[in-house]
Amino acid sequence: MHLKRAFYIGRFQPFHKGHYSVIKTIGKDIDELVIGVGSAQRSHETPNPFTAGERIMMIRHSLADTDIKHYAVPIDDIQQNAVWVSYVTARTPPFDIVYSNNPLILELFEEAGIETKQPPMYHRDKYSGTLIREKMIAGEDWEQFVPEAVTEVIEEIDGVRRLKNVSGSDQTF
Amino acid sequence: MHLKRAFYIGRFQPFHKGHYSVIKTIGKDIDELVIGVGSAQRSHETPNPFTAGERIMMIRHSLADTDIKHYAVPIDDIQQNAVWVSYVTARTPPFDIVYSNNPLILELFEEAGIETKQPPMYHRDKYSGTLIREKMIAGEDWEQFVPEAVTEVIEEIDGVRRLKNVSGSDQTF
Amino acid sequence: MHLKRAFYIGRFQPFHKGHYSVIKTIGKDIDELVIGVGSAQRSHETPNPFTAGERIMMIRHSLADTDIKHYAVPIDDIQQNAVWVSYVTARTPPFDIVYSNNPLILELFEEAGIETKQPPMYHRDKYSGTLIREKMIAGEDWEQFVPEAVTEVIEEIDGVRRLKNVSGSDQTF
Amino acid sequence: MHLKRAFYIGRFQPFHKGHYSVIKTIGKDIDELVIGVGSAQRSHETPNPFTAGERIMMIRHSLADTDIKHYAVPIDDIQQNAVWVSYVTARTPPFDIVYSNNPLILELFEEAGIETKQPPMYHRDKYSGTLIREKMIAGEDWEQFVPEAVTEVIEEIDGVRRLKNVSGSDQTF
Amino acid sequence: MHLKRAFYIGRFQPFHKGHYSVIKTIGKDIDELVIGVGSAQRSHETPNPFTAGERIMMIRHSLADTDIKHYAVPIDDIQQNAVWVSYVTARTPPFDIVYSNNPLILELFEEAGIETKQPPMYHRDKYSGTLIREKMIAGEDWEQFVPEAVTEVIEEIDGVRRLKNVSGSDQTF
Amino acid sequence: MHLKRAFYIGRFQPFHKGHYSVIKTIGKDIDELVIGVGSAQRSHETPNPFTAGERIMMIRHSLADTDIKHYAVPIDDIQQNAVWVSYVTARTPPFDIVYSNNPLILELFEEAGIETKQPPMYHRDKYSGTLIREKMIAGEDWEQFVPEAVTEVIEEIDGVRRLKNVSGSDQTF
Repeated sequence: MHLKRAFYIGRFQPFHKGHYSVIKTIGKDIDELVIGVGSAQRSHETPNPFTAGERIMMIRHSLADTDIKHYAVPIDDIQQNAVWVSYVTARTPPFDIVYSNNPLILELFEEAGIETKQPPMYHRDKYSGTLIREKMIAGEDWEQFVPEAVTEVIEEIDGVRRLKNVSGSDQTF
Repeated sequence: MHLKRAFYIGRFQPFHKGHYSVIKTIGKDIDELVIGVGSAQRSHETPNPFTAGERIMMIRHSLADTDIKHYAVPIDDIQQNAVWVSYVTARTPPFDIVYSNNPLILELFEEAGIETKQPPMYHRDKYSGTLIREKMIAGEDWEQFVPEAVTEVIEEIDGVRRLKNVSGSDQTF
Repeated sequence: MHLKRAFYIGRFQPFHKGHYSVIKTIGKDIDELVIGVGSAQRSHETPNPFTAGERIMMIRHSLADTDIKHYAVPIDDIQQNAVWVSYVTARTPPFDIVYSNNPLILELFEEAGIETKQPPMYHRDKYSGTLIREKMIAGEDWEQFVPEAVTEVIEEIDGVRRLKNVSGSDQTF
Repeated sequence: MHLKRAFYIGRFQPFHKGHYSVIKTIGKDIDELVIGVGSAQRSHETPNPFTAGERIMMIRHSLADTDIKHYAVPIDDIQQNAVWVSYVTARTPPFDIVYSNNPLILELFEEAGIETKQPPMYHRDKYSGTLIREKMIAGEDWEQFVPEAVTEVIEEIDGVRRLKNVSGSDQTF
Repeated sequence: MHLKRAFYIGRFQPFHKGHYSVIKTIGKDIDELVIGVGSAQRSHETPNPFTAGERIMMIRHSLADTDIKHYAVPIDDIQQNAVWVSYVTARTPPFDIVYSNNPLILELFEEAGIETKQPPMYHRDKYSGTLIREKMIAGEDWEQFVPEAVTEVIEEIDGVRRLKNVSGSDQTF
Repeated sequence: MHLKRAFYIGRFQPFHKGHYSVIKTIGKDIDELVIGVGSAQRSHETPNPFTAGERIMMIRHSLADTDIKHYAVPIDDIQQNAVWVSYVTARTPPFDIVYSNNPLILELFEEAGIETKQPPMYHRDKYSGTLIREKMIAGEDWEQFVPEAVTEVIEEIDGVRRLKNVSGSDQTF
């Protein structure tokens, strides 16, 4: 029995309904989904407030109401594009196909001889990590854009307070 | 609602029935288990034949017959003990307790103020990664020591052939 | 006998009278001060002309006229905020309190359960590393903004010439 | 017999006629030339489309019609200027002189006590890596600016297609 | 005014009376001493129980009863001998001479054109980090081999308990 | 026109007549040879006395009396076997076949789908880096085992003196 596994990657800062929707769509075509949590080493920054562990928890709890078998795996930035595909495949279960809308990721996997496919785009103007983080900082309603499980995780870790605090920083000291 | 999460780490080269048994025991006391896959960056060596991704797959498929909610997360060796605990916690969901029989791991988490507990020991003389790898190389029966799902994964990746090949190497060239 | 130790960090490019003034104020409340020399691995750049070793020498010689017991310790950028606090504490004597005006640093130490305090701000418009480096490049008077010991160190290493040279570079080749 | 060796470094994205012309000039004064291929770890990016290996091949094939004895050596960015000279000299044959027009490189080697010299500038407005890459992306004629051997290498690796693809990426995902 | 500065390096696990005695002797010939704390990134291991910060504190407090102006600087292992000297000099104040009995260190600094000198050997059979750590583990008297200030530091951090705990570990898990 | 390129790797500490003989044999079947200089970051150690740059020079000068078109490229140890093949291919011109007698290297390239071939073994008991280094240290005749060009390089860099010095070191301080 060979399982059909796919790979999908994002930064998930935070995991939102756009991601959720894409994954639900991909899930129909495959047996198992490997979800890469990109820029895993980054956290406590305006564009990357949450740790990899926190993002993994968001994903797992959000997908608990689906029957999609998935793996969430942290992937650090390694800044060596030519090595990146094998870096990813070394820490993930073997997969047959990559779903992405990012031209660089598509190029890298295609050069490596791995099949790629562009998933249907969710409404990127509506569901956007950048927008959600801005709303968190401004104290506006952001909960509507994320699965309920993500709201719970962010509350558990007091994530909005953290983001507000670090967004006041110039990141250099 | 606060979930009780625990952390347990191993190299899982490969994941065997001893690991399985310990996790079943731990699982009774907690809501979710974070499983660290140690020495994640290593593979294709006699003591570390399998990649982190392959080991994650072994764990997930083996535990599919249980109802233990778990996360399997690759943890690279960083060779800086004083930084190791925060390296782990940055890539894992928050946990309340660490289960380990390793004195170094116990010491590091205790110095960090995290509760630790020693799980019941499985029969280490019977279930041992070293022993299983030796049997693989020697062409003896190793399948009895691992969950059936692990046998399937190792067959899918042609793992015994790989181990035999690299075990003939002196690792320097 | 427990000594009260505090931590204070800066890039000190170069160490100036604003830093000196803050340290004098902090020094009144504590027994020993650990001074982190940030971005330690950087030098020979317009925003970071001096090596960690040169900056340590500036600090030590400037504080020689005080009775503040202090340690000056190089701290490299590690680009992993979630690990940074333990990276710092591993290479510094244990401290009880952190003095900083930087929101990120305050957040990171507070999440780690370490007490923080904002020192009185010196005149940041007057004493500014950026301003001092600009004056060095422009050939204007910069010596008035730094302790005399810093002027001597910069002369010993021919630092103004170095800064002028590297500031003409686009840093890529 | 002591050979006179010189060092010259560039990113060579791609190697063009300006580089070729400078090297021909330098070659008259020396016995052997060590050519550093800078930012070696970078590839598959708009400003750095080609791997170090591909750039080494461009250099070697382009200089095949000269009698300049040369070594092409990949040099990674290490982001520690104070260490950079010894990093370079550890992976290159010993050299007596450095040719460069870059102020930072001149400063670093001069502080290390190594002789430097500014080669005659080629027409930087005419021969520019940036310009050539822009022409590749725009589908305009770029072949006139590079040695014929470079055109062949880029065709062998399908380099223009790669650059077009990755230039559509925002490099973050 | 040019100060005569010297460099001396050790692992100082822990700092003992042999180190103290050598430094007192060196101190007579120089104005300032730069003390490198080697293998700075290591701790919580049988051969390296103490962090760099703890070792710095041992040195500073032990030398408080002398008038030797000194800098204690953590030096990580970088495993690239050809780069090591410039790595050290980048994080230390400029020095004129290196005191060492280690052939590798002498060779590296001599190849870099820096003067070296062998300090008088202390009784290595009597004062030895290895011996002191063995006595700590065995519960024997070790305090007689270290300055009183070191005993105080080790008590403050509960260092003997830590060493006993980690020495029971096989360092792999 | 597609050139047939092969890859061959060694540590070359130093480059000896066994290596020379294998390369001459391989050279008959191919157009260009890429020679990886392994453990490139190591030097000044008993098993690795020479820098990558020095080893590159040995190779190039030794092969000057052949008509084998070759590239000598430093390859650092990266300690991640699953990533190693793409690390190598990113810094080398594209090659079609790998020549090696090392089981690990054969396995890694075969898993990556690259053709491998075992070259005829030279007399490993006669031509051995270990043996040559032992003879250098003992002051015995080693020159007979290396190409004349290698003797010249080692004399130019005073390599035997260096090896003797560092071989007296225990490599820890």
